[in-house]
Amino acid sequence: MKKFINSPDTVVRDALFGFAAAHPDRLCVDVERGVITRAERPRAGKVALVSGGGSGHEPLHGGFVGPGMLDAACPGEVFTSPVPDQMLAAVATVSGGAGVLFVVKNYTGDVMNFEMAAELAAEDGIEIATVLVDDDVAVRDSTFTAGRRGTGATLFVEKIAGALAEQGADLAAVADVARLVNERSRSFAIALEAGTTPAAGRPGFDLADDEIEVGVGIHGEPGRSRETIRPARDLAARFVDSVLKDLPLSSADPTIVLLNGMGATPLLELYLLFGEIAALLEERGVVITRSLVGNYVTSLDMAGASLTICRADERLIELWDAPVHTPGLTWGG
Amino acid sequence: MKKFINSPDTVVRDALFGFAAAHPDRLCVDVERGVITRAERPRAGKVALVSGGGSGHEPLHGGFVGPGMLDAACPGEVFTSPVPDQMLAAVATVSGGAGVLFVVKNYTGDVMNFEMAAELAAEDGIEIATVLVDDDVAVRDSTFTAGRRGTGATLFVEKIAGALAEQGADLAAVADVARLVNERSRSFAIALEAGTTPAAGRPGFDLADDEIEVGVGIHGEPGRSRETIRPARDLAARFVDSVLKDLPLSSADPTIVLLNGMGATPLLELYLLFGEIAALLEERGVVITRSLVGNYVTSLDMAGASLTICRADERLIELWDAPVHTPGLTWGG
Repeated sequence: MKKFINSPDTVVRDALFGFAAAHPDRLCVDVERGVITRAERPRAGKVALVSGGGSGHEPLHGGFVGPGMLDAACPGEVFTSPVPDQMLAAVATVSGGAGVLFVVKNYTGDVMNFEMAAELAAEDGIEIATVLVDDDVAVRDSTFTAGRRGTGATLFVEKIAGALAEQGADLAAVADVARLVNERSRSFAIALEAGTTPAAGRPGFDLADDEIEVGVGIHGEPGRSRETIRPARDLAARFVDSVLKDLPLSSADPTIVLLNGMGATPLLELYLLFGEIAALLEERGVVITRSLVGNYVTSLDMAGASLTICRADERLIELWDAPVHTPGLTWGG
Repeated sequence: MKKFINSPDTVVRDALFGFAAAHPDRLCVDVERGVITRAERPRAGKVALVSGGGSGHEPLHGGFVGPGMLDAACPGEVFTSPVPDQMLAAVATVSGGAGVLFVVKNYTGDVMNFEMAAELAAEDGIEIATVLVDDDVAVRDSTFTAGRRGTGATLFVEKIAGALAEQGADLAAVADVARLVNERSRSFAIALEAGTTPAAGRPGFDLADDEIEVGVGIHGEPGRSRETIRPARDLAARFVDSVLKDLPLSSADPTIVLLNGMGATPLLELYLLFGEIAALLEERGVVITRSLVGNYVTSLDMAGASLTICRADERLIELWDAPVHTPGLTWGG
């Protein structure tokens, strides 16, 4: 294993120091407590969004902290849930008195720890709502999950619910839109090569020279099948078919489409694959209203990509377009 | 080789279709002529910035086309210079009558082809200035280069000269600031794994399981030495020493620091490495005024990173901070 690390034991801690050094003007990184928050103090009356999960998926979640998106993120160890103390520290720091929305990817450890934190926060009189993200259509029940896994739609949920919270909506409304976005979003991923966790020191799974994992999870969980590598236009059909089977779309539906790299796939290939996907969607009468191509919900140095589509509506597109200023996602005035 | 491609022969063309599909609102991609321009028509009296080079370094250069940065980019085949016809088509499209600045990385093919395009454009009465970027301190004269190679500083040049052009400065002033930025910038790169061009189908060079290439070029050109992998803090010292030896800095100098991933290195590792570099710079009394961490000047799926530092001044920082709206770099109102 060759990585830019000091020791497998200190990867997340060391990376948080770097994250702090890179964004001193816009973020506060509490390395000891494992909490990333916006530099500015919480606005009274604003619903706060707190997310988190295992590290290794950067820029998710820490890179999505900032105006228009998250108020705080709690990074766990690599591929390991953060602990409830982190979420409690985050809540204490960012709560503006209007309640807190937890955005939780559907993995057993995350679900349990965010639930525990929600109970403890409630005892302190802080109102908490939770949205579980479970957009990955590849499999039901997986290595770390009961039900579907949460993957690329997390970005959609954090962006759109974050925008609504920024506008001053109350907790029920922010939680509702978050759940709506999750319900209307589906994802599917293909890996060309496994990623390597620093602790394991070798790839999470083995693929032959011509083999791919179809339906892979963001921790390298098994998908639907091992298959032979094929041209991008054939793989594009696999992505599109898998998502649309679970998310029927008409040409009247506005959509938000994310083609996400898993960490080690170059942008040149992602754009190429996106071109094939866009052509297929057009053939099938699906309109791409907004799109995003790049590395957003990664899996360390896994080579591969995931497609996420949200069946949006006018309001969701407006919230998507609202300004966002985070290290990982920025637009608008 | 496992890549999201259809055929090694059509990679760049296919990727340009995807690039067009991803950014229909902000860019025009002329796939046939191999030119990427801004969606809006050129502003009369504005100096136009045109860059380009071999593909495989995305988001450079096409991802840096947009308000505040480039007016056009000419993508060559993978690791191959664009041809003069591309630059001439770009000039014809974006010239606003105030002259055109060519931003050229110092590789023999690029230098020759941009020079030829400049001569032909001059015959058509269009004033052209050229800035050669040659910031990589690793080696003098390399596989494709006489003199130093052009790498990460290209982003600084395109951003800062682009900002000045946006403000309405004339060609001489824009070219001057571009050259100043190049003169004041130095880079150094380390590869952990080679990248694979689609045409070759195998890694550009071979490294043992514990071996790294110190001083590597962005096409996998040999660096200074093959060495054994070491902890990130030791490698950080190697980056910092190499750059500062060639670019002495005092604590009075504002700096812009880019820690750039080569394509397959996850953000988690880049942030970790940046933390070590930031700590070392602080020890040596160097102030990081602005920083950028991520994949900007890549080398297909090479694993590795490069450090670029610009010894700035107040004016250069102001130009750096000016708004920019491109697929690869965005900030400001």
